[in-house]
Formats: sequence, structure tokens, C-alpha cells
Amino acid sequence: MSDKKYDFGLVGLGVMGRNFILNVADNNFSAFGHDLDQEKVDALIEEGGNTEKVNASSDLKTFIDALSTPRKIMLLVPAGKVVDIVIDSLIPHLDKGDIIVDGGNSFYTDTDRRDAYLEEKGIHFFGAGVSGGAKGARKGPSIMPGGDAEAYKVVQPIFEAVSAKYKGEPCVAYMGKKSAGNYVKMVHNGIEYGLMQLTSEIYDLLKKAGDLTNSELHKTYSEWNSGRLQSFLVEITADIFTEKDDKGDGDLVDKILDKAKQKGTGKWTSQNAMDLGIPVPSIDIAVSMREISALKDERILADELYGRPTPEAIDKAELTKLAEEALYFAFIITYAQGLHQLTDASKEYGYGCDLAVIAKIWRAGCIIRAALLADITEAYNDNPELKNLLLAPKFVEKIQSTVASARTLVSYAAKSGIPVPGLSNSLTYFDAYTSSRLPLNLIQAQRDYFGSHTYERLDIEGIFHTEWEKE
Amino acid sequence: MSDKKYDFGLVGLGVMGRNFILNVADNNFSAFGHDLDQEKVDALIEEGGNTEKVNASSDLKTFIDALSTPRKIMLLVPAGKVVDIVIDSLIPHLDKGDIIVDGGNSFYTDTDRRDAYLEEKGIHFFGAGVSGGAKGARKGPSIMPGGDAEAYKVVQPIFEAVSAKYKGEPCVAYMGKKSAGNYVKMVHNGIEYGLMQLTSEIYDLLKKAGDLTNSELHKTYSEWNSGRLQSFLVEITADIFTEKDDKGDGDLVDKILDKAKQKGTGKWTSQNAMDLGIPVPSIDIAVSMREISALKDERILADELYGRPTPEAIDKAELTKLAEEALYFAFIITYAQGLHQLTDASKEYGYGCDLAVIAKIWRAGCIIRAALLADITEAYNDNPELKNLLLAPKFVEKIQSTVASARTLVSYAAKSGIPVPGLSNSLTYFDAYTSSRLPLNLIQAQRDYFGSHTYERLDIEGIFHTEWEKE
Repeated sequence: MSDKKYDFGLVGLGVMGRNFILNVADNNFSAFGHDLDQEKVDALIEEGGNTEKVNASSDLKTFIDALSTPRKIMLLVPAGKVVDIVIDSLIPHLDKGDIIVDGGNSFYTDTDRRDAYLEEKGIHFFGAGVSGGAKGARKGPSIMPGGDAEAYKVVQPIFEAVSAKYKGEPCVAYMGKKSAGNYVKMVHNGIEYGLMQLTSEIYDLLKKAGDLTNSELHKTYSEWNSGRLQSFLVEITADIFTEKDDKGDGDLVDKILDKAKQKGTGKWTSQNAMDLGIPVPSIDIAVSMREISALKDERILADELYGRPTPEAIDKAELTKLAEEALYFAFIITYAQGLHQLTDASKEYGYGCDLAVIAKIWRAGCIIRAALLADITEAYNDNPELKNLLLAPKFVEKIQSTVASARTLVSYAAKSGIPVPGLSNSLTYFDAYTSSRLPLNLIQAQRDYFGSHTYERLDIEGIFHTEWEKE
Repeated sequence: MSDKKYDFGLVGLGVMGRNFILNVADNNFSAFGHDLDQEKVDALIEEGGNTEKVNASSDLKTFIDALSTPRKIMLLVPAGKVVDIVIDSLIPHLDKGDIIVDGGNSFYTDTDRRDAYLEEKGIHFFGAGVSGGAKGARKGPSIMPGGDAEAYKVVQPIFEAVSAKYKGEPCVAYMGKKSAGNYVKMVHNGIEYGLMQLTSEIYDLLKKAGDLTNSELHKTYSEWNSGRLQSFLVEITADIFTEKDDKGDGDLVDKILDKAKQKGTGKWTSQNAMDLGIPVPSIDIAVSMREISALKDERILADELYGRPTPEAIDKAELTKLAEEALYFAFIITYAQGLHQLTDASKEYGYGCDLAVIAKIWRAGCIIRAALLADITEAYNDNPELKNLLLAPKFVEKIQSTVASARTLVSYAAKSGIPVPGLSNSLTYFDAYTSSRLPLNLIQAQRDYFGSHTYERLDIEGIFHTEWEKE
């Protein structure tokens, strides 16, 4: 080992970690990795090619000693107990002023707990969400740091160098206080769940109602990706339809089991939105659909018990046009719900988020990057106090010009027995959110009737109770 | 104070507590109440009329001394910290073997915690959900005890006497181990949220699309209540439409503010279902709709920005018939989701619930009591291992004969801009649950594409990963 000290340390040399550290090295910061698995250490050294730029060790002490102070150590390890174990293993070796960055999908309250724990020990700590998958980590992810702003400034040049760029602007920025970084990433993933559900149900509709072949589906999603629907998820969806089965005939997509897994961030988004009292039904239903998909055995039994309507004939070109408009509509609604949650969480948890900055760093690098995010950034720049994207003047026309197609397709799918729960939840959310009057006066009446829970009135201030039941 | 000892003690003389204790006294058990509020104590004594049968004191020592041992003390106080405070205030005065019953809507993990805490001190403790509102507490609620089975046996004669009766059978039974009582009550309330949302959106549809007057709505819900939709919630809905405004002209229902409140049990149901991985979208959306309803100011702004389609003309009688069928369909789906959650929770938490017994004690007394629950009880009696109500042979025809109307109304409402999110989530749940193939193969492909999350195949066992992106 030479005396050379490395600029950046990274613990956890899985796919994300290895790619992230190679990205750091590409950007002229020397980096040193650590993983208990010697094979991963060797693989990184081999792929790095120049140990002056990127080196690694399975020995913790070697790793610590290799870093210049204050040490900048990023963790890319699985969320949960592993993060605590790694932190505790690092502490005895660190000096005051060293910096640990948790780059995983840690639950936000864990980040706050660890922040307090490490502050006592004089170690700087902050959470930074990283999105972009394996390729993003390698070529430029979107990075969402929060918490200790001074510590972030020390790491900032490295993060700005390695992050994705949108028209030259780095897709990284300080998200806000405390666990803001992990929280923003959690909601990012919630939105991702929503968008993935939407792309999958539109695929189902095109296939079942429009008889589109995989080749036509590829063409359709590709065309969409060169228009206003341009986005990473639409782009890879187009790509997926071209993949041939390497274990048999036909296309790979048709051979994949329809049971979707989840790692929890979508669920957390929904659960936390409920704690905040913010409706995110397009995300909730995406979580539910992954759950229903997992019940494959029950679905097979149920399918045999129940018939299904034959979809009405529909013109392929017309269906495709409707689908593009409906998907655009539902994408907007899904972003609107997630951003609404962030707006509220920022107040509730004291993050001080700037929604325009969040939208800005999502324009490239991350999984939910989309042309739409440029418009969303502008909407929040125009009005930083915007409560909901649906109230932004520049979104009114976008929504008004596409909602009719969402209506047509939800209507068609309901009659045809093709489930489009994401699209229909996006539509009912829109119809409810834009209704100055909802029928929940009846629910308040019911609650007062059976539980004396009281109600308010439209015309008179105050809290009222009625003895509804006459003896 | 005479030397007479009372059979039953109750802490918390709010509406529920006062009514419950009077109910106990009506059933020839002497009862003693306690509340720190002297006015509530005086009110109970006055209403009770005979202090030999029902008495009360604001003094804790007097209350404790008045009870025969082992003491049977029920708490009907607000869920949360108050329960812990009351328990801690009782402990120093109790003898080993005394029994505390928490009758409130406590969160199930709190019940498990308190159980362990009190066991150490030799005090028996169990949670018992109580449903039926104020009138149920007075005339016969449905009671859902769980946990300490020996302790329950001591209280059982009193609970069986005070509970509602369905064809002579008491609506109380041992629900299962640990916090099963509170858990079952939580899901009961989740189902209640779902049913309330459905009755309210069908009201909205009948009013907006069918121009039904309140008088016609009363007639419609009354007729429904004498058929297969017979249920407490449909019954009180019919009743609500007859209530005149006592502060002005017209009907009270039209004056009530359309912002629905919630106390958390519906939210807990949804959040916990997500932890279990069980889809309950008809409950989730009911929680979301209460949240959207609370955003009244935003709704007013949004309403001004967006137009709304004019509902297509529809024959009133036809609409009413469709609505009855759709509501019946969606009620079944909502019960199915809640019972599915209970089935899974019973295994996950080791409750050992008997679903037939749960359905049985919901047939009378509780807020979700309905003619349907007799059928549900039979379905679980026929097959105690039933995974989902939709798989019960006797439900297939009920669903098949009504789902077409749900399709028609979801379709109609989508086109008309009238939000029926509960109905549409019930329909998409049905369509997804009965689909042997869902498009979530695409989601697995996307996950593997961007995150190397792997996938399974339909045709070959194993875990697979593909390098989707070609360089």
C-alpha cells in the first residue's frame, strides 16, 4: 500500500456500489472501496484497472487508512440493520469530522435516528437518495442529499461531478434538513411504482383490446418516447418488447412470470401519505396490484370460477391514440400526488424542501426522469407555494386535453373486464379533487348518527350534533 | 357506601361508557362506573335510577373498593396514551387475578404491549373491540374479545348478556389469541370505511345522474334495506334523508359540510394490510376520499379551473336498479378484502381466528351488520380454509349476477365525471383477482432492466436475469 490517500470511500461493492465508485474514479476523484466479500473487492480492482484511481480492500482498517481526512465514506448497502452494523463497525476507526453518507433506501426515521447517534460521536452523517439503477450509478445518477448541509458541501464537488446532467446542470442538490434526502427518494420510488403500474396496464389494454403484437407494442412505446411521454420508463418498456427469449422461441416478455416483487419503498410512501393525510391513490393501487399479482394461485382458481366479457372491437389506431393521451394524463396525476405528499411532508417534518429543486434534479439520471419534469420544474418555479400540480395554470390545458381519453379508456376497460386500476384511480382522484362538492356530507351524517361524532355545516360556523334517531 | 359489591366496573363514562354500563345493569349485573368528571358520574347515577344496580364515583379508591373480586374492569376511554395512564392509575389498587378489559379502538401492538406489562404484575388483561355506536352500547353491541382466554371466561356471562343477539345467539365470541380482539375490530372499521364510501358515492350518482330528490333517495335506500342490501348503514342512510334542517329550510343532509373526519382505524387497516401484503383497495380508497374531502379549499380552486362533462341522460328506474346491483357487488368485494386481511393476519400474528365465528358475531349489533353476513358465515362454515370470499361457491352467482351493473356504472361515471372510486376499485380488484394473467410480467422486466432485480419465468423454475441493454 502506497501513502497515497484517496478522495472518496465507498462501503458495499454490489452492483450499485461498484458502478458508483467507478463513476467517481472516471470523474478524477480517487476512490477506495470496501466490502467483506473478497471477490467483489477483486472484481472492482480488475474493472478499475488503475489502483491509483480506484482501489479496494476487504480489510476495514486498510480502507479507513487509505482515505484522506475528513474521510468521505458513502454506504451503498441494503437498507435496514446492515446500515447500523456497518456504521458501528466504522465508528471506532473514524476521526471527529469524518463524514458518512447513507446512499441506500433507508427509511427516513432511521436516518434521523442515525444522525442523532453519530452527532454525539462527532461524526457527520447524512442520507442521500440515489436513483438511476445500475446504469445510472455508472454513468450519472440523480442524487438527493439532505441533512447536514455543511457535510454535504464537502462532498458536493464529487456528487456534482458524478451525477447525471440535464442540459449541463448536475442532477444533485441539497433537498432539505434532517432525513429530507431519504424521504424525497422514498416518494420518488412511490411515483415510480405508480408510473410502472400505468405503463403495464396500458400494455395490457393494447394487447387484449387492440391485439397489438410485441413488435407493434415496441413501435408504439418508441413513438410515445419521442413525444411528450418521453421518459426512462417508456423508453425501456419499448426496449423490453424487442428482447428475444434466450431459452426458447418467441419474446422474453411473454415468458416472465406475472408476479411482481417489491422492496418496500412504494409501500412506505403509501403508508406515510396516510399518516400525513395526503391522498396518493395512484401509488396505493400500484402497491395493491403488486400484492394481487403475488396471489397467482388464487388468481388461477378465481379465473376458472368467473367469466369475463369479450372486449368490444376497437380500432387499433384509435385505441393507441387514446392510450397515449390517457397515459400522459395519468402520469401527470401520479406526479401531482407524489409532489403533494412532499409538499406536506416538508412542512410536517421541517425539511424546508424546494419543490422546484426536487423536480429539477429528477429531469435526468433517475428512474422517473421524463420530459414532463421540465414542465413540472417550471410550474414550481412560477409558484413555489403551489399546493398541487393540478392548480398550476400551465397544467390545466395539458390535463383538459387528455382527460377525455382517460374517461373513454376507463369506461371501455370497465365494460371489457380489463383492469386499469392505476388509470381509474388517477381519474377518480382528478374528478374528486376538482369537485367543490363531494358526497362526504353523507359520511359525516352517518358518523354523527351512529357515533355522535358531530359535523360542521356549509352555512353556519360551529360543531353540530343531531339526535337522528327518533324514538 | 354500603358493603354491596358490584359485579362489573367501567372506567370512562362518555357516551359509549355510560350506555354500556346501563346495558350491563339492564341485564341483571350490578355495575359501578368511574370517571374523573363528576358531571358524568352524576349523569350516570341519575340515568341509572337505582344505585343498587348502577352506581359511580369520581374517586378511584371508592370505585375499586366497590367491585367484587376478581374485579372485572372495562375501559372505554380514548385509544392511545389515555389507556396507559388509566391502567397505571389502577395498578396500585388492584389484586392479583383482577381483570382489565380494554374496550376501545386500541392499536393491536399497544394491546400486546399492555398484555405483557400487566402479566408481569399478575393482572389479567385483554382487548375487546366493541361496535354498534352509542345505541349499540346501550341496546346490544357486537363484542370482539381476544387474548387471555381464561380471563375472558370470567367476563363472558356479562358480555353474552349485554351483546346483541342474532336469532337468539349472542354477538360476542372469543376472537383469538393476543391482540386478536382489537385487530378484528380494526378491520371491522376498515370495512366500515369502505361501505360508507360506497353508500356515499352511490348517493352522489343517484343525485347527480338521476336527479333523485332526498325523498326519493330515502325511498330508494329504504327499499334496498328490505332486500339483500339490508344493513345498518343502508338503513341509517335512508333515515338520514328524512331529517329536516332544524336551523333553516330544507333537509339537513344538504347543509352538512362535505369534509369527512376520521379517527384512524381505517387508516391503520390499510397501512397494516400493506405490511401483510394483502390488497384492500376498496378500503384504501375510502381513506383517500376522506383525505380529499378534507382539502375543501383546494377542491374549490380546482373546480373553477376544470370543466366537467354533463352526465348523459339515464332513466331513473334503470339507474336505481343498476345502483342496487353495483352496491351489492361492491359490498361483497369490500367484505372479501377485509376478511382476506383477517385470514392472513391470523396466521401472521398467531391469532388462530375462526373466520366463521367473526362473521357470525358481526350479523347483529355492529356497524357493518348486514344480511350478507349470514351468507358470509355460511361460506366460512362450509370451508373454514377459504382464502377469499370470491372463491366461495355460493358467492359466485351473487357476484356474476351483479358485476355487469358495476361495469355499467363505473363506465357511466367515468364518462360523466362523477367520482365512484370505491365502486371502481372494487371492480378493478375483482377483474385483477380473477385474472390468471396480469401484465405485471412487464413490471418484473422493468425492475430487472434498471435494477437487476431478477425475475421468474412461467415455463422454467429458477431466478433469471437478463442484460437487457445492448451496448
